[in-house]
This record gives sequence, structure tokens and C-alpha cells, in this order.
Amino acid sequence: MFESAEIGHAIDKETYDAEVPALREALLDAQFELKQQARFPVIVLINGVEGAGKGETIKLLNEWMDPRLIEVRTFDQQTDEELARPPAWRYWRHLPAKGRMGIFFGNWYSQMIQGRVHGHFKDAVLDQAINGAERLERMLCDEGALIFKFWFHLSKKQMKARLKLLEDDPLHSWRISPLDWQQSKTYDKFVRYGERVLRRTSHDYAPWHVIEGVDPHYRSLTVGRLLLDGLQAALANKRPPQGPLTIGPLPTNIDDLSLLNSLDMTQHLEKEDYEEQLITEQARLAGNVRDKRMKRHSLVAVFEGNDAAGKGGAIRRVAAALDPRQYNIVPIAAPTEDERAQPYLWRFWRHMPPRGKFTVFDRSWYGRVLVERVEGFCSPGDWLRAYSEINDFEEQLTDAGTVVVKFWLAIDEQTQLERFEAREQIPFKRFKITEDDWRNRQKWPDYRVAVGDMVDRTSTEIAPWTLVEANDKRWARVKVLRTINNALEAAFEKDKKSK
Amino acid sequence: MFESAEIGHAIDKETYDAEVPALREALLDAQFELKQQARFPVIVLINGVEGAGKGETIKLLNEWMDPRLIEVRTFDQQTDEELARPPAWRYWRHLPAKGRMGIFFGNWYSQMIQGRVHGHFKDAVLDQAINGAERLERMLCDEGALIFKFWFHLSKKQMKARLKLLEDDPLHSWRISPLDWQQSKTYDKFVRYGERVLRRTSHDYAPWHVIEGVDPHYRSLTVGRLLLDGLQAALANKRPPQGPLTIGPLPTNIDDLSLLNSLDMTQHLEKEDYEEQLITEQARLAGNVRDKRMKRHSLVAVFEGNDAAGKGGAIRRVAAALDPRQYNIVPIAAPTEDERAQPYLWRFWRHMPPRGKFTVFDRSWYGRVLVERVEGFCSPGDWLRAYSEINDFEEQLTDAGTVVVKFWLAIDEQTQLERFEAREQIPFKRFKITEDDWRNRQKWPDYRVAVGDMVDRTSTEIAPWTLVEANDKRWARVKVLRTINNALEAAFEKDKKSK
Repeated sequence: MFESAEIGHAIDKETYDAEVPALREALLDAQFELKQQARFPVIVLINGVEGAGKGETIKLLNEWMDPRLIEVRTFDQQTDEELARPPAWRYWRHLPAKGRMGIFFGNWYSQMIQGRVHGHFKDAVLDQAINGAERLERMLCDEGALIFKFWFHLSKKQMKARLKLLEDDPLHSWRISPLDWQQSKTYDKFVRYGERVLRRTSHDYAPWHVIEGVDPHYRSLTVGRLLLDGLQAALANKRPPQGPLTIGPLPTNIDDLSLLNSLDMTQHLEKEDYEEQLITEQARLAGNVRDKRMKRHSLVAVFEGNDAAGKGGAIRRVAAALDPRQYNIVPIAAPTEDERAQPYLWRFWRHMPPRGKFTVFDRSWYGRVLVERVEGFCSPGDWLRAYSEINDFEEQLTDAGTVVVKFWLAIDEQTQLERFEAREQIPFKRFKITEDDWRNRQKWPDYRVAVGDMVDRTSTEIAPWTLVEANDKRWARVKVLRTINNALEAAFEKDKKSK
Repeated sequence: MFESAEIGHAIDKETYDAEVPALREALLDAQFELKQQARFPVIVLINGVEGAGKGETIKLLNEWMDPRLIEVRTFDQQTDEELARPPAWRYWRHLPAKGRMGIFFGNWYSQMIQGRVHGHFKDAVLDQAINGAERLERMLCDEGALIFKFWFHLSKKQMKARLKLLEDDPLHSWRISPLDWQQSKTYDKFVRYGERVLRRTSHDYAPWHVIEGVDPHYRSLTVGRLLLDGLQAALANKRPPQGPLTIGPLPTNIDDLSLLNSLDMTQHLEKEDYEEQLITEQARLAGNVRDKRMKRHSLVAVFEGNDAAGKGGAIRRVAAALDPRQYNIVPIAAPTEDERAQPYLWRFWRHMPPRGKFTVFDRSWYGRVLVERVEGFCSPGDWLRAYSEINDFEEQLTDAGTVVVKFWLAIDEQTQLERFEAREQIPFKRFKITEDDWRNRQKWPDYRVAVGDMVDRTSTEIAPWTLVEANDKRWARVKVLRTINNALEAAFEKDKKSK
């Protein structure tokens, strides 16, 4: 969920200086239009890791926009008046009116995450709070509100560096964060529970936007652009007769950096190393799957990737380690008639392995947010809601002991071209290349965006994505096997701890 | 929530026999159309109290309709195959395909309610299960499914009589329910947790229908009609580009009996009794509000009722018992400009009393599902979602220690006419009667339906409605005061127990 916000996004000063004036003007225009229409309020929720620039960004927004139309609310300690009433009262009294913008810095999310981090309650109570937040936001959106939710993120390393920096800076040392942020355990918990909250509460009507907080130019421009795009879309849209205002997906990447192009595509293995490591990992997998602790688990491996990235070959290397009775390979192509008569997840549910077994999906439920999105086979509403449906689905699997591993096999365009051409030369591989493959290749940039969104929204602690640098097939195959082994052993280990 | 299903609904045999043939034919037609369109599946969830006719109704539906297009699934013990997979797998594998109907007898709701009744988990875990069910149903509806949820209800007395009857009947004694249903404690818990589940999971896209189960003719006809109306509406509607199929509200009352007309409107008090009881209750209220245990609570009293039902007079009798610093009376008329710029609940949140205080709402948030519904001031989608929004709102109040009492002051049409005419005669009361009042009177039947739906959907254990027979003002005033006192003392009592 936070992978894309740990790769060092940055915008240089020239670009920033060049872009800001137009952005400010457009934001002011949008704000004025918002006031004129007075059709809906805008609620901006600011959350995230300490030191990631939350306060600075709010300050900047007030500089950029007309502060008379913005209400910034900090919800720290409850006042006496607030303590005497239901907890939600403090939020209701500060809701912005139609035509205005309210920035809630410290809000219902901060309270539930802090409470869980400090052990004031367990997951079930956190889930109650999450559900309460969902109901509140759904109601606000049904009443017409436009909600932005920003999560400012830093990797642990980045956070520590940033806190150190602030500490050493006489201008900033007064605002040094509470002691407990210095402890890396707090960071881990905060991010873990934050992820649970984001996963559950990111909806098409009020999605989370995760912002990498290291570079001030990047984070400011990103937040500004998201606000602008969202405002403009909402101002242009009519409110539907029922249901929330819809503004569709907003682009989040404003620099050229993305998870996919931050991969080191030169990773490779020499033949000898490959053969040795492959055998080692295959033996390890055979052992893991036969392990008696496997009786409490099942294993689901999802293979997605560019065409010709080597999914088939990787799957064969996995299968080669196992007894055919232990696993099942499910190739996903166009749905059958029976499958079309059901919700899209049905065709995957029917193949879920029982405990002790292993199912490999060669392409998967992620088709919804990849090919169906890119080709327009379903509406934006459909694929937008799919992210949380898929997260729910995978949570049900992992809750029942299923270990879920998900691979995106990435190759670069040149490698794909070479492989396509090679396939056309080799008679027994010719069936593997079709007109469709050449056509899909034209949509490379669209898939790139779709893959980025997919990983950002569905790579979760319970079912993380593994991006596999697959220009070198050997490297890819070994990485796949090793990842599966690590995941299984981690699950076994966790069993031991929970005993 | 179950009040309307405990008043002895019944349909006589002649009416039943006369209506069934046409209903069956229409159901068969709808079923055929459903199959032809093959646009969406129909999922029917059957839940409720033991002995309330769940099994009989399913049997009957299979007789009435084409059983080849209906799949009845009983989810009792999980099979070995099911136990080896995530719990939801058993439901997914039995989902009906588009064009078909699946009747789920014993489903996700039965499991969560049973689990809570038998103490396998607490409320927080129940709420997690509730949230899981909501997400599942929302997803199914977003995918196009039409979901009916029937809760078959019996009052405790009715249930005991019914179980006895079955026991004595040699044809039925084999199917006598598990022992624990004989215990009245089980019934209480079942109904309490059932109510929590219904309150949370009744949505416009998949509402609950509570069916009184005593009279077989009544319950069969009601279920048949609801299915028919819902099916016909869904078959006629196009699926919206996004979001669930909407079919609007379905009428539930098929006999002439309703909560309102089951009231004994001849209730009255003689002057002497009235004066004595009024003073007693006023003194009791004064004491309760001054009680030190009141520091942990606040009190919210909602007054709704027919025009000229005597709300003002009743409120004055409540206020007369108290020091003006202790209470606040909020008359609700058309919203102000500030209020119109906010979600509809905002104007009520702003008047929430702090602990220790008492606020009287002379009309309230229920305007949304009364006048706004009847006059068309908001869309059906808006007032349909209001029921669960209001339940959420009141749950937040009661969770924070607020005691919520809600009164509907009911008079009959004749009494209203007399009072209107009297008001026009008395100079100092003439301001109380306007053209609007006469106009509202024309909509008496619409209000009747709206009040019935309101009570059915928002009378909850945490914030029950009290219907007040108000033809006699003395009776009404004393009943109001007594109800407030009982509610306060019950809350004090509960504090003691929870210590």
C-alpha cells in the first residue's frame, strides 16, 4: 500500500517554480467557483506518519488558496464541552458548509490509529471504529460532500532521518514530535494499523491518496494537483439523483518515477548460480508443502505480468518441485458462460484450494483492474470498487489460513519486442503470439498506470505484491520460488508465535 | 423494530383463496421474465425466530413458483470440503446464476446471531461479522443481484404457543426445535442480537422485511407479494451505470392492521386521577434529573405526532417539572440558511445536550422520513437511506450515555377535525391553525404509511418509539412523563449493573 511512496519521488526546484503559479491560479478559480455554486462542501482529511510534511502542506494550501474560504481544524485534546457529548459531536460542529473547504488535521482516523497503536483496544474494536468512519463518510458523500483523504508517508529510514534533521534545526526543534515516534516499534505499528485502516476505508466515493513526504516540492505539487483535479471534476459533474458525487479516478503520479520504473531491470543470474539456486529453492518448496504445518494453510499464487514476461516458465519451475496431487494450475482466459452469469469473483472462489493444497492462478481476479480497466470492458465505477472488493476477498483467504503471494513479472518494452519476434521464428512457440499481443503492446503506458494503481491499492501486509524483474528469466524464476518459500515459512513461524 | 410484527396480523381463508391464484400466476410470469432477461440473480435470505414459518414458506414458494428455477440451500453444519476453505466459500459456490433464484435458509446472519447468542464472541466481533455481511451484499448488489431479506418474527408468547402446538402435533413433533429455544432467555437474546443485526444491515439496496409469522395466510401472502413487487420493479428497471439496482420501497402491509390502528384510542384519565398522576410523575422527573447519576447521562426527547395532537401541551407539562437551566426546547421548523448548507443531521447535532442536561425536540430529524418523504422534498433514495443514518446517529448518542425517548402522539381524524375547528373559534389559538394544516390533513393516509415505516425501521432497543394515544390529552401527558421517568431510571439501573 505504501510501496509507491518509498521510492524517492522528487521534483526539482525549476519545475516546481514553473508550475506553481498556474496551479495557484487554477486552485483559486476552483475555490471561487465552489463558493459560487455553493453546491457541496469539501472535506480534506490529513493523516500519516510523523514528520512527513502534514503541517507544512496545510500551511502552504492556506497560502496558495483564499484562506477565508478554508477552515483548518486540529482535533487534539477534546474540550470540556466536547467531552460532555458523543465523540462525533466535535466533527459535526466543524463541518464546512456548502461552498467551503474544511481541512481536518487530526481526525477520526488519527484517534482510532493512535488508540490501536497504544494498545487501548484490539482489532475488533478498531474495526468497529473503521466501520463507523465508513458510515459517516458514506453519509456525508450521499449528502453531497467531496472528501479528499491524504496519507503522508515516509519509509522508516526516511522518518528517522527527518526527525533527526528537525531536531538539529533550531527553527524547528520546538516542534519535535512526541518521544514515542523516536522508537521504531511505534513506526511499525502505526504503519501496520494505518494500512489496515486505508485498506478498509478507501472507496470510490472517498479514496485515500498516499503521498510520499520526503521532497517538499513533490508532496506540495501532488496534493495541489489532486485537489485541483478533484475540485474541477466535482464542479463540472452534476450530482446524481442518488448516491455520492462521482469524480472518477485521479492521477497521482506527477514525476516520472513509479514503482515499475524504479526496478533494477539488469538483475540477472549466471547459469551455474541459477541451477544451484533453483534446485535449492525447489527442494525447499517441496519440503515446505509436505511440512505438517502446511495442514493449517493453503497456498494461492497469483501470476500476472507483461505478455511474454515468462509467467508460464516460472509456473513450470514451481510445479516441477511438487507432486501433481498437491497443486492445481488455473489458467484464466475469457470467462465461460457459467462464469459470466455470476459476480466476477465467483470464478476464482470456485478454485480456492482446501487446506494443505496449492493453487496457481495464471492471470487472476486482477484482470478486473488490468485488462478490463484498460480495454474498457467494465465501467470506471466497477473497477474502482474492485480494489476494496479484492482486498476484502484476500482478507477472507488469509483469515482462513491461506497464504497469498502475488507476482507481477515485469519486462521492459525492448525485451518484449525481442521475445515476440523470437516467438514468431520458432515454430513450436508461434501459437504463443497473436495479433492481440501486438495490439496490447500499443497500450503499454495504460497498463503501466493500471499496474501502479493496482500495486498501490492492493499490496497489503496480508497479501503483498512482489514485483519481479523478469528481463532475465533465471533471476525471475528463482525470485518467485524464493518468495513463495519465504511466505510459507513466515506463516509457519507466525503459527508458532500465536500458540 | 419488531413492533409491527407482534400485533396479530391475519388474513381470512376466503381472502387468501381468492388472492392466491392471481399471485401465483404473476410470480410465474415474473420468474419466466427473470429467466428470459438473465440480467440478474435473485437471492432470498430467510431468517428469524424458531417456529415462525420459515420452512413452510419456502415449501410454499416452491409450490407456487417453478422449482426448476429455484435453488434452496440450507447451510447447516459445514461439510469437510467447506471446513477446509474460507467460510464464505460455501455461499459463493451456491450463488444463483443470473436469471435464477437462490433461497438461502440458514446463512451468514444465522451464523453470526447464533454465535453471539451462545456467547462464542462479543459485540465487537458480531459487528465485524455484520460489516462483512454488509460488504458482501453491497458487492453482490453492485454486481447486479437483487436481494430479499425476510425476518420471520413471533412475539415470545406467540413463539411459546407455537412450539407447544408443534410438540403436540404427531405430524410435526419430529421437527421440534433444539431444546434451547424452549428457554425464554434464548428468545430474548436472539431477538436482541437479531435487532442489532437488522438495524445495521438494512440498506436501501438490500432492506430487511419483517414478517409476522403467526398466521400462515398472512405470512405467505406478504412474502409472495413482496417478492412479486420487488421482482417486477427490478425487471422493469434498467441497471444504473454504476451502483446497485434500485427498486424503491416496497409496501409491507397487506391487511388493515397496523401499529397505529392497533392502538386503543379510548384510553383516558379522569381529571382527578390526572392531576394526581401528573404531580407524581413531575416530582419523579424533577428528582431524576437532579439525581447525581444523571451526571453520566443526558436526555433527548423527541416529540412527533399528528397536527393538533397536543405536542406543545405535553412538552409544557414536562418542562413545568424542571428548572429552566436544566433543559432546552428546540422547535424544528424549516431549516435556516446555515442549516441548508449542511447535511440534514447537522441542525440536530448542534443542539445535542452535554451530560447532565435535557433537550426536547419539538419535531426532529424524523422530518426526513415524514414530511420530506410525504411532500417529496427529498428523493426516495434520500429518505430510504435516512433510516440507517438515523439509527447510526441515535446509536452514537446512546453509546455516549444519552437516553433517547421518542414519542409519536396519535389522534384520530375526527379528533383532529374537532380540534382544528375549535382552534379557529378561539382567538388566542387561531395562530396555531393554518392552511397548511388543512392541506396536511388530506395526506392522512400517506402519513400513516410513513409513520408505520418509521416505527418499524427506527424503533430499536436502544431508542424505542413510544406511541401515545393522544385523543385524551391527560392520558397522553401522563404517559409521556412516565415513559421519560422509566427510561431514565432504567439507564440508572443499567449503570449499577455494569459497575
